[in-house]
Amino acid sequence: MKALVYHGAGEKAWEDVPDAAIHDRTDAVVRVDAVTICGTDLHILGGDVPEVTPGRILGHEAVGTVTAIGSGVCTLAVGDRVLISCITSCGRCRYCREARYGQCLGGGGWILGHLIDGTQAEYVRVPFADNSTHPIPNGVTDEQMIVLADILPTSYEVGVLNGAVRPGDVVAVVGAGPIGLAAILTAQLFSPSRIVAIDLADSRLEAARKFGADIVVNNSRDDPAAVIAELTSGLGADVTIEAVGTPQTFDMAVRLVRPGGHVANIGVHGAPATLHLEDIWSKNLTITTGLVDTYSTPTLIGLVASHQLDTSPMITHRFALGDFEAAYDTFARAAHTGALKVLLTRSDS
Amino acid sequence: MKALVYHGAGEKAWEDVPDAAIHDRTDAVVRVDAVTICGTDLHILGGDVPEVTPGRILGHEAVGTVTAIGSGVCTLAVGDRVLISCITSCGRCRYCREARYGQCLGGGGWILGHLIDGTQAEYVRVPFADNSTHPIPNGVTDEQMIVLADILPTSYEVGVLNGAVRPGDVVAVVGAGPIGLAAILTAQLFSPSRIVAIDLADSRLEAARKFGADIVVNNSRDDPAAVIAELTSGLGADVTIEAVGTPQTFDMAVRLVRPGGHVANIGVHGAPATLHLEDIWSKNLTITTGLVDTYSTPTLIGLVASHQLDTSPMITHRFALGDFEAAYDTFARAAHTGALKVLLTRSDS
Repeated sequence: MKALVYHGAGEKAWEDVPDAAIHDRTDAVVRVDAVTICGTDLHILGGDVPEVTPGRILGHEAVGTVTAIGSGVCTLAVGDRVLISCITSCGRCRYCREARYGQCLGGGGWILGHLIDGTQAEYVRVPFADNSTHPIPNGVTDEQMIVLADILPTSYEVGVLNGAVRPGDVVAVVGAGPIGLAAILTAQLFSPSRIVAIDLADSRLEAARKFGADIVVNNSRDDPAAVIAELTSGLGADVTIEAVGTPQTFDMAVRLVRPGGHVANIGVHGAPATLHLEDIWSKNLTITTGLVDTYSTPTLIGLVASHQLDTSPMITHRFALGDFEAAYDTFARAAHTGALKVLLTRSDS
Repeated sequence: MKALVYHGAGEKAWEDVPDAAIHDRTDAVVRVDAVTICGTDLHILGGDVPEVTPGRILGHEAVGTVTAIGSGVCTLAVGDRVLISCITSCGRCRYCREARYGQCLGGGGWILGHLIDGTQAEYVRVPFADNSTHPIPNGVTDEQMIVLADILPTSYEVGVLNGAVRPGDVVAVVGAGPIGLAAILTAQLFSPSRIVAIDLADSRLEAARKFGADIVVNNSRDDPAAVIAELTSGLGADVTIEAVGTPQTFDMAVRLVRPGGHVANIGVHGAPATLHLEDIWSKNLTITTGLVDTYSTPTLIGLVASHQLDTSPMITHRFALGDFEAAYDTFARAAHTGALKVLLTRSDS
């Protein structure tokens, strides 16, 4: 089969590799019908994720069709259409039993395209297949589903649910890339009074408006603190969601929140931030971090199926499976191409 | 009347001042029967709390007897014995209605001995007296009650409840001063499996054992991470409580917690800390800060009255009201004197 193989920082190739096969009784092999690229894949190619070693097939988001199952797989059958979650879970360890699948101690967690071969391939082996895939309801397209493999549950769980967004809240989302947009989209499930999107790029802020932001602030020109102070009688936002991953944006998220508010960090960070405890020790803040657990994926699938969540505007560019050079290029140059999520699909799917 | 007046950094005097009197309809005047000194008072005397201006009467913890009430006070009568809470609350603003009295926007919050004259005096004016005092049950002594004015609710709410201590947890308390000890004491209400106290002073660790710590670690000699790793199969503590207020101890609290765990900061900080987001972004941590709200004070009073909480070992030194020079000296030199809380009482009370 063909797959996109990582060959060290900056290097990747779509090339022949051994076919994906069942190794463990709980495995399934899934034919990849649609797959996307994550910002994390760019971090891997940048050499920022040293656990990913040369020879690894990349990718951790896909929709596909089951082609083989191990003898211990009980809820899947060959031919089933499934969402492959970015999080694999053993289902048995302490963390899995608490629905914290992202922290799985039994060999799961984020492993696809990280510690084992991933989904940017014609076929993929999925461990713990009963727990690590989700059936796709009839009438829901691959395009609607693919963003539920990672970014939608990530933004919902790590941003909106950890941030405890509630009706009437003023929610500030720092960063309007795909993760920030998914946070804006899913925050509306809790009927906040105002969602304020903050970014340096007007094109992203335009997208933020389409996804439901009420107010947009280009912080290269305007001061988000002044905008939020005006909305909140000077108190600050009820919830701030950090969706970038730099010390500066984290600091902004902490400074924009009101006493008693929540700061939900989604951003993947590569450097420490300064936490101004001298200002916030008495402010009753709750700051959360997290990798997605995907416990919300069934709920989100239901919301997509019932048309309460419209994920379709998230896919902006489409490619044939195998055309990863062009797809990565388009995604990596999102500031120029306007790409949110890029989709690669089998020609016959 | 006499009171302890702040005269700028390092300067204070027990001197004649105008009598405390009713200013607003919701005020009470309370005769101070017993009063203590807080670590925060030392910060004020160190010049670290610039809102406290010369001429201010210090102190925010006391037990006393009501001697006058304004016409709007409905639940108190002259002669009532009351606990004066460190937190005063208007009862009407958004924060008070959410039981976040420490963030009161209506003129309350921590104001005694801070923004208005305090309790280190023969008499004190208590604003919003219905909300800012608590009746003392029969049979409960001033000594048992005084620590409920501040440190017990602070450690319980900002440490134990914000940290979400649960049965079976391994709880690490960084710092075994009075606040850390009160956290150790109240954490036991939730039946953790092990409480680990961490401090640089053996005398404090000895006190920690008396207050219920199962394991003590002097981190000048031993590595708390190794001790906790051994207790938790390498995972880390379920909850860490920061009870010091330095960048180093905060960093330790963050490093000692397991994925999915809680870091509850109680410490009063004067400098920023480094938050290693590059390590914790994916660890599903919850970090909380807070000033006490005192919503738990009635519960804690009940637990003391029913002998489920024994606060008496917290008072280590006793003085006559007015003998503030000796009391402050004993408290400030706690490392030598072994002082936890020092009590000053009226001669006739």
